[in-house]
Amino acid sequence: MTSETELRDPELARPETERETETDFDEDDRLRPDFVRAVLDAVEAGDFEEARARVESLHPADIADLIELTPAEDRAALASAIADRIDGDVLAEMNDWVRDALVDALEPRQIADIAAELDTDDAVAIIEDLDADDQREVLRALDPDDRAAIEEALSYPEESAGRLMQRELIAVPEHWTVGDVLDYLRADDQLTTDFWEVFVVDPSHRPVGTCELSWILRTPRVVSVTDVMKREQTLIPVDMDQEEVALRFQKYALISAAVVDGGGRLVGMITVDDIVHIISQEAGEDALLLSGAGDGDINEPIRDSYKARVRWLIANLVTASIPATIVYLFEGTIAQMAVLAALMPIVAGVGGNAGTQTLAVTVRALATNQLTQSNTIRAIRREIAIALLNGLSVAAAVGIAIAAAGSALPDLGGGTLPLVIAAAMLTNILIAGLAGVLVPVTLERFGQDPAVASSVFVTMVTDSMGFLAFLGLATVSGLVG
Amino acid sequence: MTSETELRDPELARPETERETETDFDEDDRLRPDFVRAVLDAVEAGDFEEARARVESLHPADIADLIELTPAEDRAALASAIADRIDGDVLAEMNDWVRDALVDALEPRQIADIAAELDTDDAVAIIEDLDADDQREVLRALDPDDRAAIEEALSYPEESAGRLMQRELIAVPEHWTVGDVLDYLRADDQLTTDFWEVFVVDPSHRPVGTCELSWILRTPRVVSVTDVMKREQTLIPVDMDQEEVALRFQKYALISAAVVDGGGRLVGMITVDDIVHIISQEAGEDALLLSGAGDGDINEPIRDSYKARVRWLIANLVTASIPATIVYLFEGTIAQMAVLAALMPIVAGVGGNAGTQTLAVTVRALATNQLTQSNTIRAIRREIAIALLNGLSVAAAVGIAIAAAGSALPDLGGGTLPLVIAAAMLTNILIAGLAGVLVPVTLERFGQDPAVASSVFVTMVTDSMGFLAFLGLATVSGLVG
Repeated sequence: MTSETELRDPELARPETERETETDFDEDDRLRPDFVRAVLDAVEAGDFEEARARVESLHPADIADLIELTPAEDRAALASAIADRIDGDVLAEMNDWVRDALVDALEPRQIADIAAELDTDDAVAIIEDLDADDQREVLRALDPDDRAAIEEALSYPEESAGRLMQRELIAVPEHWTVGDVLDYLRADDQLTTDFWEVFVVDPSHRPVGTCELSWILRTPRVVSVTDVMKREQTLIPVDMDQEEVALRFQKYALISAAVVDGGGRLVGMITVDDIVHIISQEAGEDALLLSGAGDGDINEPIRDSYKARVRWLIANLVTASIPATIVYLFEGTIAQMAVLAALMPIVAGVGGNAGTQTLAVTVRALATNQLTQSNTIRAIRREIAIALLNGLSVAAAVGIAIAAAGSALPDLGGGTLPLVIAAAMLTNILIAGLAGVLVPVTLERFGQDPAVASSVFVTMVTDSMGFLAFLGLATVSGLVG
Repeated sequence: MTSETELRDPELARPETERETETDFDEDDRLRPDFVRAVLDAVEAGDFEEARARVESLHPADIADLIELTPAEDRAALASAIADRIDGDVLAEMNDWVRDALVDALEPRQIADIAAELDTDDAVAIIEDLDADDQREVLRALDPDDRAAIEEALSYPEESAGRLMQRELIAVPEHWTVGDVLDYLRADDQLTTDFWEVFVVDPSHRPVGTCELSWILRTPRVVSVTDVMKREQTLIPVDMDQEEVALRFQKYALISAAVVDGGGRLVGMITVDDIVHIISQEAGEDALLLSGAGDGDINEPIRDSYKARVRWLIANLVTASIPATIVYLFEGTIAQMAVLAALMPIVAGVGGNAGTQTLAVTVRALATNQLTQSNTIRAIRREIAIALLNGLSVAAAVGIAIAAAGSALPDLGGGTLPLVIAAAMLTNILIAGLAGVLVPVTLERFGQDPAVASSVFVTMVTDSMGFLAFLGLATVSGLVG
């Protein structure tokens, strides 16, 4: 609980030092390479004093960044040199992979010491990835209250509200006045300082309303909390998936929310600062999933990245056999007019790009709950209209280009080829638009993540249809044979 | 300021009604299609009473969703039927495109009435997209204070902190005690109720520290605010780009932050609820930009979507001429052995997928400031290692598959072809890995958005290299000719 420390020891903060070190950051608030280098040089030279002096005024988030920016093999040395600055706040800010590796190097006793000073949610984040033996040992080393809280959190599914929530919160009974709340908050030293709302609960500990702190501050002492509180509240079931929790926070612009168990009783609180990184992660993972790059973190061990990616490359190899078979069926056509082989990847490739555009828009709209059953038909019609405009434009451009090239290169086969490639391009872009919206919508309807596997399907369709339309039209138009 | 209304009229909230209408939502908290249908049927039948009754207990965010889910041509009718529920909060929650269309249908006088009840940031979001004439008229209809605040906000660049901030905030002088702050907050009815921190300022109105409300609540009245406040604070320059603001909020887990002008004076405040949608939008736009889908919103007018997308398709058409030219140079090889035309898209396509994987990971790491100059070399080495593993695996798989197919299909050309395609695949996946990391890193180094244009470049490289390696090796290996 850093904030408590800062609260009691304002002298700890040094605005002058802070201003000095501003030059350690570039214009995008990232640590400068020469700063990182200087710290690592000091550690390597054994000058721990110098290393500690350089990191002294850094925010925990920047110390976490410094460790991430350090090559994996030098992290242990750096961590032991600046050990007094690596507390729970730093670990909570650190990339999961980097933290896991660092924590693995610590003794269970040390992990327990760090976990004890954190809110439940941050302690759980550190402990949940330990292997079973270490986890047991860390839990044994914790005091009984902390252990019970963390064991309960670990009993909820991964990535659920139960893992995200902190149990430290302020709950007051309905019959209290604003004055009672103020006295309670001032009297009890053990209460958390990190809260933004007070929850009002009934005698069975079910939340009946929330009070923003600003309302409490602006209301006379004699007023009852039930007259200040807002009764409409977004309650988070303890087993709700974190992606859903993030969407609720966004949709209803929440600062904090009560977490309730199956019986509707208040069991914890989630605050928005624990959610922002999930919002960012969930929104950012679409690009990674669409490409088949899995979790796609640059700190992920190479072995894990390899396993995640090679699966999709092999899947792609299998699906690529379908368009290859289509081309193979036209072997005779190509043998007669090999220039078709040079042009067919253009029809397939631009169609693939059109499909990917539609796919990206559709996946994003599904992820943000903008595209639901109510407007699916409308979205499909919209994509067909755009595909028609794109298809006509690109078909015209490619037809004119090939006609122009044909006047210089006689083997381009004269007047029919521009028409054939234009017609094939229009057909493929229309099919790409349809596939780009239907594939993810169908996956979603069957309860699958629309970002996973969509790309491989859509590319298979646009490759196959591009080759089929182009080589088929070339054959039936009498261009060949 | 809804929260104020709710504060004063707790009877307005109806938990019973709320529970009833829970069935209007599906398991993902989206409005059910039959609910949307029922409201629209009521509007169409002229039964506005019924329509209003159905939406009565909806949250402003859900009313905004309802309007988004309504077909564009029916929105005006719905909006006038439930006009009393379409207030500033609903407009603030609405998709930009849908809101702009709806606002365009309103009189300047009506827009001014709505803007007057909003915080500066929400009012600016509504007014900034009006055309110049309407904007002038709305501003004229506002009272002088509101007008001055909004005109000042509009003077800052689009997507800057100055547009995002609200001017309604609580700032107190350094010499005050906690008791002074409490008395001030209780005495003045005109103060905002939406704040989470109090800013402490020096006599020239420069912020010297911030107090979380919970600290004020837990501290005795006699203590000076300077003994409670935290001196380390993240100050946001008024001209900072919103993407940068979002990254600061994420990195330092901020709830609110002071916005300062060039002279360091406090001019506004940004709260995290105004930032969450920007965090989500900035994180989600990578997938859209990588595909060349522009803003990629399903509510964007078809004309705008067409313009955004066709540019990239035409660019793709141009870059696709390079790999096509490479194939064209091997026209003679293909004429002799047309089966090569069937296999070459596999080499190009799987290489393209490998490149896209690396690209997605790199772009994400750049966007989240995880990849900086300090660890670029390490990231490149990491991608080469993964590419080598992927390349060897896929090369082995494709070689074995072609060898197996070759025993059934004699035109696959015997023993050399599996080796040729395996070697070409390995080469292309290695080049894909390099291009996937070098292209975005280079764009970023030159101050360009690494997500824009990267895909087109990388695909051009993987297509060209795939065809060149495969057809080139087929020629030099003596497989053909």
